Amino acid sequence: MNRMIVLASRPIGMPTKENFRMEYSSIPEISDGQVLIKSIYLSVDPYMRGRMSGIKTYIDPFEVDKPLVGGVVGKIVDSKNPSFKVGEFVEGRLPWADYSISSGKNIRKIDPKLAPISTALGVAGMPGLTAYFGMVDIGKPKAGETVVVSGAAGAVGSVAGQIAKLKGCRVVGISGSQEKIDFLINELGFDAAINYKSNNLFSALKEACPNGVDVYFDNVGGEVSDLMMKLMNFHSRIVLCGQISQYNNTEIEYGPRFQGKLVTHSILMQGFIVSNYVKRFNEGYEQLGKWIQEGKIKYRETITDGLENAPDAFIGLFKGENIGKQLVRVVKED
Amino acid sequence: MNRMIVLASRPIGMPTKENFRMEYSSIPEISDGQVLIKSIYLSVDPYMRGRMSGIKTYIDPFEVDKPLVGGVVGKIVDSKNPSFKVGEFVEGRLPWADYSISSGKNIRKIDPKLAPISTALGVAGMPGLTAYFGMVDIGKPKAGETVVVSGAAGAVGSVAGQIAKLKGCRVVGISGSQEKIDFLINELGFDAAINYKSNNLFSALKEACPNGVDVYFDNVGGEVSDLMMKLMNFHSRIVLCGQISQYNNTEIEYGPRFQGKLVTHSILMQGFIVSNYVKRFNEGYEQLGKWIQEGKIKYRETITDGLENAPDAFIGLFKGENIGKQLVRVVKED
Repeated sequence: MNRMIVLASRPIGMPTKENFRMEYSSIPEISDGQVLIKSIYLSVDPYMRGRMSGIKTYIDPFEVDKPLVGGVVGKIVDSKNPSFKVGEFVEGRLPWADYSISSGKNIRKIDPKLAPISTALGVAGMPGLTAYFGMVDIGKPKAGETVVVSGAAGAVGSVAGQIAKLKGCRVVGISGSQEKIDFLINELGFDAAINYKSNNLFSALKEACPNGVDVYFDNVGGEVSDLMMKLMNFHSRIVLCGQISQYNNTEIEYGPRFQGKLVTHSILMQGFIVSNYVKRFNEGYEQLGKWIQEGKIKYRETITDGLENAPDAFIGLFKGENIGKQLVRVVKED
Repeated sequence: MNRMIVLASRPIGMPTKENFRMEYSSIPEISDGQVLIKSIYLSVDPYMRGRMSGIKTYIDPFEVDKPLVGGVVGKIVDSKNPSFKVGEFVEGRLPWADYSISSGKNIRKIDPKLAPISTALGVAGMPGLTAYFGMVDIGKPKAGETVVVSGAAGAVGSVAGQIAKLKGCRVVGISGSQEKIDFLINELGFDAAINYKSNNLFSALKEACPNGVDVYFDNVGGEVSDLMMKLMNFHSRIVLCGQISQYNNTEIEYGPRFQGKLVTHSILMQGFIVSNYVKRFNEGYEQLGKWIQEGKIKYRETITDGLENAPDAFIGLFKGENIGKQLVRVVKED
């Protein structure tokens, strides 16, 4: 038996469980050149919300009644492809299912001796690469500068902030609970962390950034970013990684225009997606792997058990329920 | 007798003539190392509106009861500085006055044989450099790309668009009158030009940019830029040069949030001021001078006669009264 989660309907506003449906089939048969992968971990990521709408952006939308597809770590359980042996672990964009088939082109092998296999979906995977290229290539933090990260306790933000610390910056995180604040300061070594739900957010941000802000790594957008705009220094950089506060809006939100500030302060604002850097992924994997092995980048995972609970785990992203990378564990075997 | 225009009061909203006042004194005496400059042309520029507010940005605000200071072309009429001879022409940031004194540090000599001296305030001066560095360094237009310029018939926009044409792009101008549209298409060789006051602006923009937009050189901001945002391509660049539609606002205007689009389309938005490029000014002067002499960059000037009319000429910028560079001719002798 193979279970698979399909998009039952396109969400309007916040996704609900009714937008997802479990379907059942037999375990697929592989042909020559193919491998059969047993899913161990699924990744749920905020960007997937965009694919659930019917609009093509940099990636095609999910189709209704077709499986959700995202980052999956699994084990080869059958192989008619000489490059993959049964028992090897792989990561790739695969369906939300117990089992899936691959030609081997959309998967990469991962070495369970280097790091726990789950990290291939987080700190040593796509979210880690996103943090790395966004911070290093766009943010370009210099020692002594002040770097603020929103969504700081998430899979990308937590790595982005630590990279800025490694570059010698004062790093301030913005996050949504006291538990996350403690995690950022005590476990990850952020210089300060601020709860965006606090009463006087702007004062708190200003106090945490006495020299203004040189790099703002933004995962969130909305009103938090409106306040950040006031603190940006001359020649500062705004790395637009995500805008999770806006993903469930049913119409475009209005906010204060800030292009005038960008002009007078010569500010860079750059949106990006990690696939822009595909030719440099190996550089990113190597650097992140080194930092993780040296203990210079720490990480946390929030694990939800059961394929059937993937929709809940996904919905939880928009409620800030996760600390670090949100994963779904399909089976406990690894 | 020397006349000088001072800031009488800070404008609230659109400036009025009451914000300016003429003052009178005797012609100043120069000391050793100084020169006496007789003003011939004054430049009025939209950025000066920012200096009239009391807020420090990249440049100090003008002080009330002190002279306005801007680009001036003049003639040396007395010199106790061996580097400058009587009769030479110079350009620099100088007070709005018949006569002014300089140590020679804030002025550069201009050669009336190379180009009319007035161009040192326009196409071969600060506005030309602004267009050059903004377009070449930030916009980075590639042959075959589509480039849109707002405020296209102004001092900066008209040069920016022509540079993009020289780079082999399809160039579309946005402007505010049929006369300007004709100027852009018939004199400057733009591929298309659109009146932003037209009824169905978005349809017109879309039709003029069938392949979307790769570079948007923005002098204007506001609702025109909101529409442009919808047309921006993947990996496109938005050069934020000015936001003249916003300069007289008494409170910050709200507009649709667009960071989400910047993320999904990996769009760059970069604000800048020309002084960021001070080390490369000679490159800019040389390239612009060459293009002008070769007839590859054309220009127009709108000239208002009389120092006493400088406030009107300045206010006219916000009403779109000028085509090309708006100048004030203080005396007809050159």
